[in-house]
Amino acid sequence: MLATTYANRQWIYAKRPTGRVSDEHYNLVESDLTPELAANEVIVRARYISVDPYMRINQSERNTFDQPHPLGTVQGAGAVCQVIASNSPAFKVDDWVLTYSGWQLFAKCHAGDLTKLDANLAPVSTALGVLGMPGRTAWFGLMDAGLPKPGETVLVSGAAGAVGSLVVQFAKKAGCRVYGIAGGADKGKFLTDKLGADGAIDYRKFPDSDSMSAEIVERTGGVDIYFDNVGGYITDAVIPNIKLRARIIICGAMSQYDGGLDKPDMGPRFLQHMLFKRATIQGILARDFKHRMDEMLNIVGPWVRNKEIVFEETIVDGFEKLPSALNRLFEGKSVGKLLVSV
Amino acid sequence: MLATTYANRQWIYAKRPTGRVSDEHYNLVESDLTPELAANEVIVRARYISVDPYMRINQSERNTFDQPHPLGTVQGAGAVCQVIASNSPAFKVDDWVLTYSGWQLFAKCHAGDLTKLDANLAPVSTALGVLGMPGRTAWFGLMDAGLPKPGETVLVSGAAGAVGSLVVQFAKKAGCRVYGIAGGADKGKFLTDKLGADGAIDYRKFPDSDSMSAEIVERTGGVDIYFDNVGGYITDAVIPNIKLRARIIICGAMSQYDGGLDKPDMGPRFLQHMLFKRATIQGILARDFKHRMDEMLNIVGPWVRNKEIVFEETIVDGFEKLPSALNRLFEGKSVGKLLVSV
Repeated sequence: MLATTYANRQWIYAKRPTGRVSDEHYNLVESDLTPELAANEVIVRARYISVDPYMRINQSERNTFDQPHPLGTVQGAGAVCQVIASNSPAFKVDDWVLTYSGWQLFAKCHAGDLTKLDANLAPVSTALGVLGMPGRTAWFGLMDAGLPKPGETVLVSGAAGAVGSLVVQFAKKAGCRVYGIAGGADKGKFLTDKLGADGAIDYRKFPDSDSMSAEIVERTGGVDIYFDNVGGYITDAVIPNIKLRARIIICGAMSQYDGGLDKPDMGPRFLQHMLFKRATIQGILARDFKHRMDEMLNIVGPWVRNKEIVFEETIVDGFEKLPSALNRLFEGKSVGKLLVSV
Repeated sequence: MLATTYANRQWIYAKRPTGRVSDEHYNLVESDLTPELAANEVIVRARYISVDPYMRINQSERNTFDQPHPLGTVQGAGAVCQVIASNSPAFKVDDWVLTYSGWQLFAKCHAGDLTKLDANLAPVSTALGVLGMPGRTAWFGLMDAGLPKPGETVLVSGAAGAVGSLVVQFAKKAGCRVYGIAGGADKGKFLTDKLGADGAIDYRKFPDSDSMSAEIVERTGGVDIYFDNVGGYITDAVIPNIKLRARIIICGAMSQYDGGLDKPDMGPRFLQHMLFKRATIQGILARDFKHRMDEMLNIVGPWVRNKEIVFEETIVDGFEKLPSALNRLFEGKSVGKLLVSV
């Protein structure tokens, strides 16, 4: 084997943001990756790198769902890569794989940390979206925690996002009436015309939570399942409108990630509504359903192959764009799954 | 049958309170109850009349768990009564019964609305406490929603109250470490010395929610099950200290009943903790478990007979004291189940 080295580029997480995350919280460093491979080692070259809201949670200096992301290390992230050198019988050059190599072009991985992808079954990028972590979150969050019944009313916040856009469609397949909350008329059109939602609520149209609340009850007639990606004043507007035995699924609290996790925002108390309606709230994370991935792929995989569901992607091109792409999630500027191609 | 009339006294709910409830929200009226009985009708004379926190919820002008309590009618309440006249083969004079005749001395009831009590099995007043609605709330709230496992840590707010004092003991029987939150050293002693709690936390000792939170984590090491009767800043202090897959049971929100239901208090947002810990919140009401009363009586009944649990009662004497007794619940001045003997 030729002793080539790989000119690697890495985004090193360097400084904890207090508000929005941007380039200043990262250092872009270049280094050489040596080609030597131990037994079962593989070198991969990233093609699609993920930006996900949970990354911003992990940048808090507090323990959240995990320890804080360590400073001075490559930003962790899922990536769809190609194998470019292999010392493993399980992988050969050009194989597509999913791994957690983070924000870097090249990585040396143990074969056990790679999941092989079949590009003939679905676009490989879907391993970071509908057939990956966001899909798993949407599927198990709705099905396991939400327990949807046909005829029930489902309301989804962040409905045009990676997880929300799938929840809308999964809930329609379950026979529910589905409303999505998203910002702006374009996203509203996406929800109703492309995803098949029964209605869209544009949170930007309301001066306050009370007026949004009034619209929610008028449009939906009350909510059986609220799938929440956002929290904050949007959730304030929803909770008084839950129905008896409603299920609220907390999948994210994006409105709080830019500081609210360190110093909580104040909002109206609402636990009395849980009592009056004998409702439940359940927090869910994709990691808890990893061992059940096959269950979901057996159902959602064919929907993807047969184009029975829309799996919108917003692809930003360029490794140097990673930090700004992460920030973009919080500006509400993307639809579907946001990826960076490199 | 002699055509005696019964000189009845009734507390009529007359005015919606905005803060604390007191005599001014009721009218005490006297009237005659005629003795004529249709088939299966019974006249009862109250002996113990209940005051419960839910009554204050129902005084809100909003729909809560139910329609608002109508003005101009007898205050609804459970009562332990004796039969004084019967036109039903199922009841004879002097039988003890439980019914929902409200704040009045005499009532004409349909036999189907009475539950016969056996004074030899347990003190009849327990039908309003440990063997009644508060017991059912504690039992099913803890067992069905809390799912306690031996070795887990349970924290109870309002722990010296009618429901809380039972939850503490049921959780001990389930093999848990149990801490109670209550106001003052006397209640603390009651929790540890009489109920067997592993520790008591006096919420009055803390200037703010953060300092109480620090004490909670130091004392308990984190909470698997939080049984909440109180809400407000006490709950604010608990939630950041929940453990992975914690269960939070909302049985009441007493801190909010004096106005917070009409115009919500503000408090720190906390749904992110549900996410980080994949925790659940579930609101429960006793009425949802009414059809399962036997299940609970079969287990808790023998504990009461064998004096294996403490079922403390605070008994106020005098029909005229009913409104002030209801208010007393919110002053934290009673221990165990508060009853009015008449």
